[in-house]
Amino acid sequence: MIKVVLLGFGNVNSHLLNALHNNSKVSVIQVFNRNIIKMISPFEKIPFTDDISKIADADIYIIGIPDDAISSFSESLSFQNKLVVHTSGGAAMNALAAKNRRGVFYPLQTFSKQRKVAFKEIPICIEAENPADLELLRKLGETISENVVEISSEKRAKLHLAAVFVNNFVNHLYGIGSEILKDEKLPFDLLKPLIAETASKIKTLSPEEAQTGPAKRNDKKTIEKHLHLLENNSYRDFYEMFTKALKKD
Amino acid sequence: MIKVVLLGFGNVNSHLLNALHNNSKVSVIQVFNRNIIKMISPFEKIPFTDDISKIADADIYIIGIPDDAISSFSESLSFQNKLVVHTSGGAAMNALAAKNRRGVFYPLQTFSKQRKVAFKEIPICIEAENPADLELLRKLGETISENVVEISSEKRAKLHLAAVFVNNFVNHLYGIGSEILKDEKLPFDLLKPLIAETASKIKTLSPEEAQTGPAKRNDKKTIEKHLHLLENNSYRDFYEMFTKALKKD
Repeated sequence: MIKVVLLGFGNVNSHLLNALHNNSKVSVIQVFNRNIIKMISPFEKIPFTDDISKIADADIYIIGIPDDAISSFSESLSFQNKLVVHTSGGAAMNALAAKNRRGVFYPLQTFSKQRKVAFKEIPICIEAENPADLELLRKLGETISENVVEISSEKRAKLHLAAVFVNNFVNHLYGIGSEILKDEKLPFDLLKPLIAETASKIKTLSPEEAQTGPAKRNDKKTIEKHLHLLENNSYRDFYEMFTKALKKD
Repeated sequence: MIKVVLLGFGNVNSHLLNALHNNSKVSVIQVFNRNIIKMISPFEKIPFTDDISKIADADIYIIGIPDDAISSFSESLSFQNKLVVHTSGGAAMNALAAKNRRGVFYPLQTFSKQRKVAFKEIPICIEAENPADLELLRKLGETISENVVEISSEKRAKLHLAAVFVNNFVNHLYGIGSEILKDEKLPFDLLKPLIAETASKIKTLSPEEAQTGPAKRNDKKTIEKHLHLLENNSYRDFYEMFTKALKKD
C-alpha cells in the first residue's frame, strides 16, 4: 500500500483524490490545505489538517498549489528526506526545496471543478532525483493511468507550452466563434459538432493531414470576404496571422 | 420520394451520397461530375454522367463544387425553373444563376475523404427563394439530420467565418503543438487526451467558463518562461497575441 498525503486541495489534487480513492494499492491518508476545507462525501473519512506541523508520515507527498508558491511552501515543510513531488507542468523539479527527495507527478490534462475526467487515458509525466523514487511514482501512476512516462523538466516545460496552444488558445478560438455567432443571434450549439469532429480528426490524422479551409487552399476570394466581415473587429488580427501562417505551410 | 441529382462529386457531395444512400424517402438518381468518376460499391448502380446536357430530371439539384465555380457552372446548366442549391458556407444564395429556383443546403461540418461522419448531429443550414422549396429542403435535410435550420446568406457568411476559427485555426494550433513536441522528440499522442477534453468541455461549459491557463490567470512568470522558450520562434507571435487577448477578457 502506497501511503499518500495531498498538500493543497485545488483542481489537480481534488481530481487526483477522486482517482486515488477506492484504489486497492494506494491510501490517501491525509489532505493538508492552508485554508480549512470540509471534506465532503465520499471523502469525509479522510483526515484533514490545516496545520503544516501536523502533516502525517507518508511514502509520497503530492503538492498541488500554484507554481509560484511551490518553492516557499516546500521549504516550509518540517520534515526531511521524504519523497515530495509537485503536479505542475510549468515548474521544474528543482523548484522544490532540496531538503526532501524531489520528484514530479504531472497529469497532462485540463481540470475543471465541474467535470469528471477519465484518468485512465491521461498521460502522467513523472520525474525523480533517484531511480527508486521514479519507480514508486511509476507504480502510483500506473494505478490510475495506462500512460505513465518519464519526462525531464526541460522537456516538460516544452510539453506544457504545447499544451497551452492546444488547450488555452484553442478554447479562446472557441470563444471567438461563440462571439461571432452571438452578434448574429445564432446559437453556439451550431458549431459544436464541428468542434467535436475537428478534435476527433487528429486521433487518426496528423494536424497537417487534417488541415482544410480557405487559407490552406489559398482561396483569396473567401479570405477577402472574411476580412471584410471582420472590419473594425479585434478578431481580424487573429484571422490575418493564421491565414498568413497557413498559406506558408 | 425526393429525387436528387448531385452535381460535382467532391468531399461534400460524396459524404452526402453516403448519407442519402439507403434513405427510404430520397433517391439519388444521378451523379454528374466534369471528370469521369468510377462509382464504386455500394454506389455502382447510381447512374453517372460527365455530360452536362444529359443531366436527369429531378426535384433537387445539389451543387458541390468550389465556391468560385458556382456562378458559371450554375449558369451553364441547360434546364430552367428547377430547384438548384449549393452546399457552400461561404457563397451567397444568389451566387447561383437566376434562371433556376435557388437555394442552399449547407451541412456545417468538416469533411475528409478518410473519415465517416454522423450526419444525424450535423446542422444543415437551408435557404430558398420561395417557401415551398424551403419546405422541400427541410424535408430532405430531416431525412439525414436532427438539426435543420433556416439561415440567411448574410448570417451564414458569419457562421462560416466562425467555423474557420473553431476548425481551421484550431487545427493549426494542434499543428503548432505537434511541432513543439517534435522538436523535443515527444509523441503528439501525449496531447490527444487534452485536446479531446478541451473540445468536450464546451459541450457543457461556455468557452468563457472553460478558459484556463497562464494568460487567463495573468501568471506572468509562466508567460515569461514560455516567451523565453519561444525565442526566435515564429510561434511567439501567436503566443503574444493570444496572451494579450486572454488577459483582456
